[in-house]
Amino acid sequence: MKALRYENKSLSVSDVPMPLADGEALVRVTLSGICNTDLEIAKGYAGFEGTIGHEFVGVIEEVGQAANRSTEKGQAGSLSYGQRVVGEINAGCGVCALCRAGDPRHCPKRTVLGIVGRDGAHAEFLKLPLNNLLPVPEDIPDQRAVFTEPLAAACGILERAAITEDTRVAVIGDGKLGLLCAQVVANAGAPVVLVGKQQSKLEIAARRGIETMTVDKADSRARQFDVAVEASGSASGFALALDLLHPRGVLVLKSTFHGAMEIETARVVVDEISVVGSRCGRFAPALELLKAGAVDVESLISEEFSLADGLRAMQRAAEPGVMKVLLRP
Amino acid sequence: MKALRYENKSLSVSDVPMPLADGEALVRVTLSGICNTDLEIAKGYAGFEGTIGHEFVGVIEEVGQAANRSTEKGQAGSLSYGQRVVGEINAGCGVCALCRAGDPRHCPKRTVLGIVGRDGAHAEFLKLPLNNLLPVPEDIPDQRAVFTEPLAAACGILERAAITEDTRVAVIGDGKLGLLCAQVVANAGAPVVLVGKQQSKLEIAARRGIETMTVDKADSRARQFDVAVEASGSASGFALALDLLHPRGVLVLKSTFHGAMEIETARVVVDEISVVGSRCGRFAPALELLKAGAVDVESLISEEFSLADGLRAMQRAAEPGVMKVLLRP
Repeated sequence: MKALRYENKSLSVSDVPMPLADGEALVRVTLSGICNTDLEIAKGYAGFEGTIGHEFVGVIEEVGQAANRSTEKGQAGSLSYGQRVVGEINAGCGVCALCRAGDPRHCPKRTVLGIVGRDGAHAEFLKLPLNNLLPVPEDIPDQRAVFTEPLAAACGILERAAITEDTRVAVIGDGKLGLLCAQVVANAGAPVVLVGKQQSKLEIAARRGIETMTVDKADSRARQFDVAVEASGSASGFALALDLLHPRGVLVLKSTFHGAMEIETARVVVDEISVVGSRCGRFAPALELLKAGAVDVESLISEEFSLADGLRAMQRAAEPGVMKVLLRP
Repeated sequence: MKALRYENKSLSVSDVPMPLADGEALVRVTLSGICNTDLEIAKGYAGFEGTIGHEFVGVIEEVGQAANRSTEKGQAGSLSYGQRVVGEINAGCGVCALCRAGDPRHCPKRTVLGIVGRDGAHAEFLKLPLNNLLPVPEDIPDQRAVFTEPLAAACGILERAAITEDTRVAVIGDGKLGLLCAQVVANAGAPVVLVGKQQSKLEIAARRGIETMTVDKADSRARQFDVAVEASGSASGFALALDLLHPRGVLVLKSTFHGAMEIETARVVVDEISVVGSRCGRFAPALELLKAGAVDVESLISEEFSLADGLRAMQRAAEPGVMKVLLRP
């Protein structure tokens, strides 16, 4: 089968053997999405080698024997051959306390689809434990379902910061991550302002009734926010987040910026800011939002390529201003 | 009167007019302590000019008219001329919501003794609002009472991180700040390990029954702590704190390191760490600890100088390995 792989410091679309279900579920990928993390991996930042990609929608093709047994309990019970699915990307050891509590996201022995020790989704087929898969409701088309993973990551903010209808939230960064975060926060009922540089992207949020502001105007709102979500992945975005927060505010660090970032730690201390890292979210709340039509994800799609054109797709995804690039096997 | 001042980019012991009580309380300083923040100010990092110093014990010498009126309510009610006192260093505007709630530490218009817009404690006299002053119990001698401010700052950790008897805490840095933090955490009943480089300093904590560990041994305890307190003021201390924390752990950033620190933000995101800034604490809990003899502060005293020898004292305080240097007016 075809797969977009990063190996020996280079990226290629290669022919590789199909994965064996081997106690897990084999999924035929119908659409996958390129994430900034994929671009970072392709720069060699994450130390990963193999098939990249972790955002996908697909169809269950085969279920390994052990996986079949595990369908007796849990979410996987409703899954069967031919079911359209999305999949949570962290596969835990199954025996540690975290896994036994049903949340393998921080299992120390976890593999992560297309990121840590497990071939990923930019391929014709992938495998994941059956328990990682969730059925996609019929009324969510593939082009929306493929956003489940990044939307879940945006929903993860709500696990890491107390956000209510009274919480004044600023989201910094008008890329696809920032646009998803702003919509999630708005859906949580909080007054949210999206801060960015490009009017055309801010308008995507504005069309959903979200207040927007260009970076050059942000001075006027200094120290007015309870929570600031840093989704720009830049040191200047981090500094702006500090500007916008009042003392004891919460800065949610959402983007994975590899390498060292220069941070004025004295500002974190003097204003007693909480800088809170946020990585993966659970899929169920994201599917709810998609099913309810509560989030505009279609406007975030820049272009679709065939998997065979994976290299060109990656180049396109790395261009400034480009948002979600999709791959179709 | 004599005062240790930072002005026009230089430090000097100068003769300056005594402060006027002018609606506040005039305090005759009997002993003051040099803090690392004083050293930073003397490098020009904080943008402050005037008399430096914010750790002191003294005696109320005069109470201004407005201050007198305010004694009708609050902690100041029990204070009078001749009373031995320590003083909280943030003086708020008195009218904002924070000040009205009795906590001026984040008042946007605050002045801070010897740090922001208010002459400090390395002088024969200082002034502070009467409401900032707390009486020192008779059984706490000056050499202990002068530690109230830094001990309160250490107690501030407990406001910023949930620490119970079940919380595994690592304190990084065996300077005076780290030694105070470790003792405060131990007094809160939590199992705490102090991580440092100098055996003689670690022994101060060990004598109080606190587990200690040299930095080179810290590898063996990676990912075992719920809370790590960074009290070394170094980028390597911050990185070590990340090593020691398990996912979703809390890193309390206690030391004010001026300038930009290089931080691997991806680690904060991937492990979903909370980096929590902590600055000033309230004085009442610190006085309780001092009164109970629950904290060894005497061992932290390196040397005492007369205020007239302030320049030499500052040089001494800046030498590696030196802990608290005291000034006697």
